[in-house]
Amino acid sequence: MGEDGHPGTPAADGPEATLEELRVRIDALNAEILALLQARAQVVVDIGRFKQGHGLDPYDPRREEEELHTVIDTMGGPFAPADVREIFRSIFRASLDLMDRRRRQALHVRRTDLVPAGGILVGDVAIGAGTPVLFAGPCSVETPEQMERIAAHLARYPGPKILRAGAYKPRTNPYAFQGLREEGLVILRDIARRFGLVTVTEVLDVSTLDVVAAHTDMLQVGARNMYNTELLKALGRIGKPVLLKRGFMATVEELLLSAEYILAHGNEAVVLCERGIRTFEPWTRNTLDVASVPLLKGETALPVIVDLSHALGRKDIMLPCGRAVLAAGADGLMVEVHDHPDQALSDGFQQLDLAGFDELVAGLGLDRPAPGR
Amino acid sequence: MGEDGHPGTPAADGPEATLEELRVRIDALNAEILALLQARAQVVVDIGRFKQGHGLDPYDPRREEEELHTVIDTMGGPFAPADVREIFRSIFRASLDLMDRRRRQALHVRRTDLVPAGGILVGDVAIGAGTPVLFAGPCSVETPEQMERIAAHLARYPGPKILRAGAYKPRTNPYAFQGLREEGLVILRDIARRFGLVTVTEVLDVSTLDVVAAHTDMLQVGARNMYNTELLKALGRIGKPVLLKRGFMATVEELLLSAEYILAHGNEAVVLCERGIRTFEPWTRNTLDVASVPLLKGETALPVIVDLSHALGRKDIMLPCGRAVLAAGADGLMVEVHDHPDQALSDGFQQLDLAGFDELVAGLGLDRPAPGR
Amino acid sequence: MGEDGHPGTPAADGPEATLEELRVRIDALNAEILALLQARAQVVVDIGRFKQGHGLDPYDPRREEEELHTVIDTMGGPFAPADVREIFRSIFRASLDLMDRRRRQALHVRRTDLVPAGGILVGDVAIGAGTPVLFAGPCSVETPEQMERIAAHLARYPGPKILRAGAYKPRTNPYAFQGLREEGLVILRDIARRFGLVTVTEVLDVSTLDVVAAHTDMLQVGARNMYNTELLKALGRIGKPVLLKRGFMATVEELLLSAEYILAHGNEAVVLCERGIRTFEPWTRNTLDVASVPLLKGETALPVIVDLSHALGRKDIMLPCGRAVLAAGADGLMVEVHDHPDQALSDGFQQLDLAGFDELVAGLGLDRPAPGR
Amino acid sequence: MGEDGHPGTPAADGPEATLEELRVRIDALNAEILALLQARAQVVVDIGRFKQGHGLDPYDPRREEEELHTVIDTMGGPFAPADVREIFRSIFRASLDLMDRRRRQALHVRRTDLVPAGGILVGDVAIGAGTPVLFAGPCSVETPEQMERIAAHLARYPGPKILRAGAYKPRTNPYAFQGLREEGLVILRDIARRFGLVTVTEVLDVSTLDVVAAHTDMLQVGARNMYNTELLKALGRIGKPVLLKRGFMATVEELLLSAEYILAHGNEAVVLCERGIRTFEPWTRNTLDVASVPLLKGETALPVIVDLSHALGRKDIMLPCGRAVLAAGADGLMVEVHDHPDQALSDGFQQLDLAGFDELVAGLGLDRPAPGR
Repeated sequence: MGEDGHPGTPAADGPEATLEELRVRIDALNAEILALLQARAQVVVDIGRFKQGHGLDPYDPRREEEELHTVIDTMGGPFAPADVREIFRSIFRASLDLMDRRRRQALHVRRTDLVPAGGILVGDVAIGAGTPVLFAGPCSVETPEQMERIAAHLARYPGPKILRAGAYKPRTNPYAFQGLREEGLVILRDIARRFGLVTVTEVLDVSTLDVVAAHTDMLQVGARNMYNTELLKALGRIGKPVLLKRGFMATVEELLLSAEYILAHGNEAVVLCERGIRTFEPWTRNTLDVASVPLLKGETALPVIVDLSHALGRKDIMLPCGRAVLAAGADGLMVEVHDHPDQALSDGFQQLDLAGFDELVAGLGLDRPAPGR
Repeated sequence: MGEDGHPGTPAADGPEATLEELRVRIDALNAEILALLQARAQVVVDIGRFKQGHGLDPYDPRREEEELHTVIDTMGGPFAPADVREIFRSIFRASLDLMDRRRRQALHVRRTDLVPAGGILVGDVAIGAGTPVLFAGPCSVETPEQMERIAAHLARYPGPKILRAGAYKPRTNPYAFQGLREEGLVILRDIARRFGLVTVTEVLDVSTLDVVAAHTDMLQVGARNMYNTELLKALGRIGKPVLLKRGFMATVEELLLSAEYILAHGNEAVVLCERGIRTFEPWTRNTLDVASVPLLKGETALPVIVDLSHALGRKDIMLPCGRAVLAAGADGLMVEVHDHPDQALSDGFQQLDLAGFDELVAGLGLDRPAPGR
Repeated sequence: MGEDGHPGTPAADGPEATLEELRVRIDALNAEILALLQARAQVVVDIGRFKQGHGLDPYDPRREEEELHTVIDTMGGPFAPADVREIFRSIFRASLDLMDRRRRQALHVRRTDLVPAGGILVGDVAIGAGTPVLFAGPCSVETPEQMERIAAHLARYPGPKILRAGAYKPRTNPYAFQGLREEGLVILRDIARRFGLVTVTEVLDVSTLDVVAAHTDMLQVGARNMYNTELLKALGRIGKPVLLKRGFMATVEELLLSAEYILAHGNEAVVLCERGIRTFEPWTRNTLDVASVPLLKGETALPVIVDLSHALGRKDIMLPCGRAVLAAGADGLMVEVHDHPDQALSDGFQQLDLAGFDELVAGLGLDRPAPGR
Repeated sequence: MGEDGHPGTPAADGPEATLEELRVRIDALNAEILALLQARAQVVVDIGRFKQGHGLDPYDPRREEEELHTVIDTMGGPFAPADVREIFRSIFRASLDLMDRRRRQALHVRRTDLVPAGGILVGDVAIGAGTPVLFAGPCSVETPEQMERIAAHLARYPGPKILRAGAYKPRTNPYAFQGLREEGLVILRDIARRFGLVTVTEVLDVSTLDVVAAHTDMLQVGARNMYNTELLKALGRIGKPVLLKRGFMATVEELLLSAEYILAHGNEAVVLCERGIRTFEPWTRNTLDVASVPLLKGETALPVIVDLSHALGRKDIMLPCGRAVLAAGADGLMVEVHDHPDQALSDGFQQLDLAGFDELVAGLGLDRPAPGR
């Protein structure tokens, strides 16, 4: 059949096949192609088994290129090399997926039995066990008095809660307040103990990991550190739960892969935290990606919380947004609370005062024990 | 006091003032500055009154430049011209705001009495009256049979609902299915009438506005048309309610200003629709900006709904996201529903089938009349 | 072709095959798969001819679903249904591409002979003929005196140039200056004629297209209108060159498809304009996507210019950015120029004054005829 | 100073003042306000001196709040408290700027004498000395043979060049190839020495800084680490030049502040690198922000280079984009080069082969010494 006629001209040789006849041919060809694909998949499985037995990497892009070149060298038409390349890439991808699937079913982050029924425990606080957990406290530890007032207030809240406050602050500006560092850790720990609270605080890098871990119940990886793979690996070797925040320009998949770093290195007590992404919308500090909550829930059994303060950067819409993320299935909320936000050394504009905190938890219906809980 | 010493050197002339003394001086200066600012504001009000009386534009940037030049010419230190320029620009801005405020209090979109207590009526369906309204239907009108099956299904839903379907489709690709146009309008109208449903459909431009308006109960402005000011003005002169979608590249403020175009030209029956914004996150078609719902609610009394199908572009997380936006205060939801999504002529991957629709409304608790409603 | 005795049949229980042997099997299977794919592609081509001959749509998702169901029903292993679905979707896609390619080779926007050797002519100004064209003028037509001063200045510039100025302004705020409209068109035309200049001005919608077209040499589609398909179609039927701006949240591909709308409706004289996209970077009004210039050049023969004023929103980096886009292959630059930017009724902060314009063209080396030109 | 008898006092009920008269009053009030603002600024300077002399933080938000409360308490009209708050905030900001300006003139990153006339030296290669420097090499060190072929090729390039290759790879996926680590460092160093080349390689965190620094001439901070302040501080204490890449989600200002961390801790040999930002445009891996080059140049004397491979993620538009960034003033280019890109263990699709590298440098006119250089 020549190319000479117009593309729209019906094939000239012999009486034209009907659409029905052409479709029967397609179905037959599909069946043959499928049989060959399955046969090929079986060889791929054999190769995978061979490689695993001999300690070889399953993924071998050189070999793929060879295959493509061999195939393309035998090309006729009507498919152009680029089409065939595309189809074979999808066959390669499916083959890798096939091997991957077994590995991925073993992928820590997707394991369905990852989190015990009682949730992830931080001290006696269970995250992911049905009752939303409040992570609350000031942006930074400033003084013992400040921490005491806030901790005393939080201790009165009846539901599960974790006191949060930064001692090591990752500041964009080198001359901005960098936190009280070790002194702040000690204040945070002492005050929390006095009020029977457990704590979470941020760890900035591997070199300060031990000192931070020695003073807190849960370790936070901040948004700027989500890609810090050396830190993630080190956290995998620590016996404390980790709160992993999504980078503000990170995809949901990248957050899962960062969690995988921690899990793969031995620590399964990881809580994920959506905290807004950078977009063009200026009326919120970041854009709260509420869909990330069910997306994450669909991919992993790890608990997911939402940091409302950083996502929104404003207080006036915190209540409806808090309702929204709980409705979307979040296992907890993080909010910045300060006894005197106007005087805070950092991020005062987005920190709730104590009355604002009470209003929020009342508005969320979290101020009294839920009937069935 | 000279500039000669190091910036850190205390002022040399006389015994150094204490911090307390310096602060008293600041407070006194602040009081004087405030008095002058108020006096200046009064003159600004007089000028505004004068201009309004003489039909002049209140904003006169040339005059501002003159003022700045006059001021800068009399400059001493220590403020540099750029500082003074900055402060005076803020004074100008506050002065404009002062005049604007009266205008803005008259700004349609911010008027608190904008929406009647019974909500905005589309036929007998009230939007913004307390019960969430479902906007449901296929992406495109395809055939009378398809529309009939979908309308029949929707008619059984007990709550307030509006049948949506596109007749004029704004497609990125000129060779993609462009909708049945007028034929589609007629099908939509006839089927809706048969099942006692009211309809919304998109209008693409001024030239087709009359024909679309003749066949539908509510007119939709699509995301691509949110900045189409000529269309917005024309819709202001139409006596039908408008559903105004946020552009996927539009800020919340820009959406409000687009609504203002319609209101300012005479039509107050406007419903706003969040439908996701373009970001880097690839697992959803757009990023659902849930915070936009309370942000809009804080700025206007107009009802706000959310188009879940376009915001998410996938069905598996529609239920938790639907719960989220209702919890955030949305007055309704839009979802694409098709009797055979796999065969849809457009956007099949994101359209619910009829069973999926039932699951969604059941999951949202909308399938039975609310107790108090 | 049966499953038995196939080269791909799994090694039963005999001695384990070597990696080399397994790879030979894969190569053989690949060759068989390729042969079947090509046979299938030939039937697809036949179906395409049949459909075109009978006026049927080449894309038929219903049929694809049927094929998939038939295939899946005959499934064995080890590929799971999702894998096979994925591979067959890529076969479908390649098949559609195959049909599309012929259509796309006929796609106007990709035709290599689209632009005559002498470029696209606006009056006697040739765009895309080797010498960069300057599009310069104020944001808005304000007064005859203003236009006269600017036109007189531009007329002295020795290279090819087009006077730009807005008469219909697409303003976000309904109460901002909306342009002098028809009065502005007349001023622009009269002044341009007096100085022997050709003009470009924006058209906002179909309803004002005729009046705008009657007064200008080239019609501009603004960024907010790039998706306005009704306007694009109408411009396809106008016998005047069009300057099509990229939407600030539009992909390069979407810009090409918008151009295709104009071309497909009969007008081939289209010039594309990059003008920055919306990102998170706040130091420029938009982010100038310099890569879009060679990307567009690789896809179409249509000329490409860059609007520096809107892309940057500041004047201090206009010269190096102007050098950059010309080095990247742009066929021209657009800049806003005003005789008194401080007094401009719109966008004063980003408009060059006349001296700034002279500095820019001198810095770009455009103030004297190029040697070989 | 009282409200009575003030030039700004509202016209009581006498004959209406003319616009001209009102404007004279405004000018007089402006002059008085200015005098008070300057007097206030002088007290602010005195307070700054006092604080610096006593080791106090210049910024004291508590004091600002007090001032605002005092002012607001004495409010009359017509300005509302929010207006006055806004104006006083701008006065506070200008006052802080005033103090900041001196500090900022001392800000390392803005010092005009930061870079010696001969540029920043990496071995004998001068960056920022007029001739663009090529940073070239593979994504990852894979084998000694691979590095040898690439180094041999690069050594023939006549202009200034630096061999780049990753030994520690920051991979999103924990199971992707993570680099040869220390083994890779040794290969890189040995091969580079053999061919007389200097090297740059990435350092991932503080814990591996010493080993990386021991083997390379320049240390690279990758995009994912730009906010890793602990690493930045540690690099400030290292006596080796640093290549600091912009995060793909970082603003230009944030890049400058990250550089400031390194400078403030003692290391002035910093080269900045634009490598594209994350946007919605899918045809390039990132969006090359060409405007960042002159923006950075306007803020700092530090050299600025552009990583074309990561910015674009494709090879076909590398030449025009390379021309663009050099025209915009970049001091160098980074490109990934591999002897067999199809077989690369990472990022093969964006790595040039050796012939592609030769074409690029020829196209850029860098393959022969510039006349005047």
